Amino acid sequence: MDKEEEVAESLLQKNSENDGSLAGYESLYQLLSSELPPHLFQEVSRVLYGCNRGEVLKPLPLHNTLSSASVEQNFDVQAFEFTADEEQLRPARKVRVGLIQNAIVLPTTKPFAEQKTAIMERITALISAAAGAGVNVICLQEAWTMPFAFCTREKIWCEFAESVKTGESTRLMQQLAHKHNMVIVSCILERDEVHGSILWNTAVVIGNHGNIIGKHRKNHIPRVGDFNESTYYMEGNTGHPVFETAFGKIGINICYGRHHPLNWQAFGMNGAEIVFNPSATVGDLSEPMWPIEARNAAIANSYFVGAINRVGTEVFPREFTSGDGKPAHKDFGHFYGSSFMAAPDASCTPSLSRCRDGLLITDLDLNLCQQVKDKWGFRLTARYEMYAKFFSKYIKEEFEPQVIRDPFLDNQKRF
Amino acid sequence: MDKEEEVAESLLQKNSENDGSLAGYESLYQLLSSELPPHLFQEVSRVLYGCNRGEVLKPLPLHNTLSSASVEQNFDVQAFEFTADEEQLRPARKVRVGLIQNAIVLPTTKPFAEQKTAIMERITALISAAAGAGVNVICLQEAWTMPFAFCTREKIWCEFAESVKTGESTRLMQQLAHKHNMVIVSCILERDEVHGSILWNTAVVIGNHGNIIGKHRKNHIPRVGDFNESTYYMEGNTGHPVFETAFGKIGINICYGRHHPLNWQAFGMNGAEIVFNPSATVGDLSEPMWPIEARNAAIANSYFVGAINRVGTEVFPREFTSGDGKPAHKDFGHFYGSSFMAAPDASCTPSLSRCRDGLLITDLDLNLCQQVKDKWGFRLTARYEMYAKFFSKYIKEEFEPQVIRDPFLDNQKRF
Repeated sequence: MDKEEEVAESLLQKNSENDGSLAGYESLYQLLSSELPPHLFQEVSRVLYGCNRGEVLKPLPLHNTLSSASVEQNFDVQAFEFTADEEQLRPARKVRVGLIQNAIVLPTTKPFAEQKTAIMERITALISAAAGAGVNVICLQEAWTMPFAFCTREKIWCEFAESVKTGESTRLMQQLAHKHNMVIVSCILERDEVHGSILWNTAVVIGNHGNIIGKHRKNHIPRVGDFNESTYYMEGNTGHPVFETAFGKIGINICYGRHHPLNWQAFGMNGAEIVFNPSATVGDLSEPMWPIEARNAAIANSYFVGAINRVGTEVFPREFTSGDGKPAHKDFGHFYGSSFMAAPDASCTPSLSRCRDGLLITDLDLNLCQQVKDKWGFRLTARYEMYAKFFSKYIKEEFEPQVIRDPFLDNQKRF
Repeated sequence: MDKEEEVAESLLQKNSENDGSLAGYESLYQLLSSELPPHLFQEVSRVLYGCNRGEVLKPLPLHNTLSSASVEQNFDVQAFEFTADEEQLRPARKVRVGLIQNAIVLPTTKPFAEQKTAIMERITALISAAAGAGVNVICLQEAWTMPFAFCTREKIWCEFAESVKTGESTRLMQQLAHKHNMVIVSCILERDEVHGSILWNTAVVIGNHGNIIGKHRKNHIPRVGDFNESTYYMEGNTGHPVFETAFGKIGINICYGRHHPLNWQAFGMNGAEIVFNPSATVGDLSEPMWPIEARNAAIANSYFVGAINRVGTEVFPREFTSGDGKPAHKDFGHFYGSSFMAAPDASCTPSLSRCRDGLLITDLDLNLCQQVKDKWGFRLTARYEMYAKFFSKYIKEEFEPQVIRDPFLDNQKRF
């Protein structure tokens, strides 16, 4: 092992020990529950994770097999139930959803084939654990087959790209979907062989019979921090598809799209009941925004949201700069995990670990979406006609913002 | 004092003692800071209130006069500073902003004139305290001149409505704005005498010379819980105006509009740098959503947001039902205050008290808005053309959602 590999190995090791900010603390929820007296923790939970239907989120009991697997294979596992009211004319539509977050398995200095195989083995094990727990729909993190190497701007990492239809990861996910009677959302770096072999950031939706239902390509591409993704692929051309599966209507808002309320909204307007947000984001940049945006989307659009972030610090072989005036370095920062599920009634689960792989299982009754729509009336009161007009005006070069200026202001001086 | 008045008095009393859910706890921030060891509180603060620029929000020192006034007059006061980077070609644009939250002063059974005068006196005192602290722009809560009586569906409360131009509250606010060189956003129930004397829910923007710059009428009207506002007034007809004042460009998203990402967005697209969200909302219904929505809007739109909620439990003379199958009752629930300020860089202040009147003072450098826009690029990457097209299609009767159906699904069976 050369020196670079040693550093990479030691950092991979570090991921499972702490997250670089505070040792021995796995999640905000766990920290608060262990530090606060029970009656205060209950009140804090009500405000931070609360449901506006006056109920507390119920933990689901874990089967022994799953608990043992999580210890043996070192992954965090949590399970919760979101409830809905019983209806008279429609049966409950209960779905068990799984979210998987994970670190890369081998250092980025290892041969690509080995890196990919190791991740695929890890994901196969995690999906099997989920299947054993009866999960119906599962979503993996963004570009799960590879390190998130876009920070380097090196094109060698494009080798990890795959065709949607014939790629190795799709074939594996098809097998697992069929075997486990599970819908799988598999997010990959796509090579579009039909159109000049360009790249896309793509979610492949695989039905519970192992069939490919379709794909969605990331709509909004970041130009921020080390997310040099616009160097590799363009804004998606697949619109806002909703995939009608055996277990509900699903949309996928990939990563940076979570900062775009319009993206969330269009999936809702197309009928999504669950929208996944497979992501890769790091602590210093986005951690305070993380608990806000996906949850706001669930509230504003009356659907469930599954927010997934990768885990760990990924160290690359060659140094790169980050456009922030700081010296060159080899890692991107800490991917802080913290995957969670948010509901249309404003409740949300605690987050998975900030530093370990994890599986979050939630039981949903999809009927809650319509119940919340009827209660809160956000669609009813949305005035889409007004905004359709406003947007049509805005995109024109001659758009004039609606500004009412205080006539006392000196015409020359603008604050 | 008759029995009803006694009950009302005792409930007003109760507001300043506790909030009905947990005695002796003024805000989440105060609870966590007093219960957690300092190093853990620091980490929790980073995640809950953190700034993605790597800095901790600085408390501003309070002048003795203000501290004494807050004790003597029993209101919570807190002050913080949001910072921005220095620029080479543009000076900092620092503004001191105030948010005021308050309970009604007299029971709802008192003569209307007395109720209104008492509130106006209270607000005059709070604005004077803010002026003494050098506040440049202040925003009051929704319909601040009156109890939030819409739950009753009784039309007698319409008497509290005022003309924007000649109303008593506007005249008072004009005097105070002129006296204190302050921009004041005054939110009232408006009687539109020019157009059939109908009502609107309106924010009046008063310039620092005491002039009325303009008004904005609430765009989205709730039909939820006891918010029977659609019984009294219609959706606003003033668009999404941004008021260019001596202290920055201001928009007002009134109350229920905070659930509508499009409403937030249109103010941003018209150039707002600060958007106020004067509100009236109660605990069981919305408290877990409160810290999410305004903060998400600040992040998504790269502007500052001031979220304001009234305080206390308002008991009405005659009972009413709430459309929830529960017995008739005379109060609406607890308005939980908790006003806060959120910044485009994802940081936010702790909230004001859940149970007492309060004044929140924040120093902003408006340059942060453009700095965050340049860093995160949400406007740049927003793809407005795509959404303009999507919305134009959506509003048509023949709109067909973009749904990709798993062909394995039985055509008859929809989950």
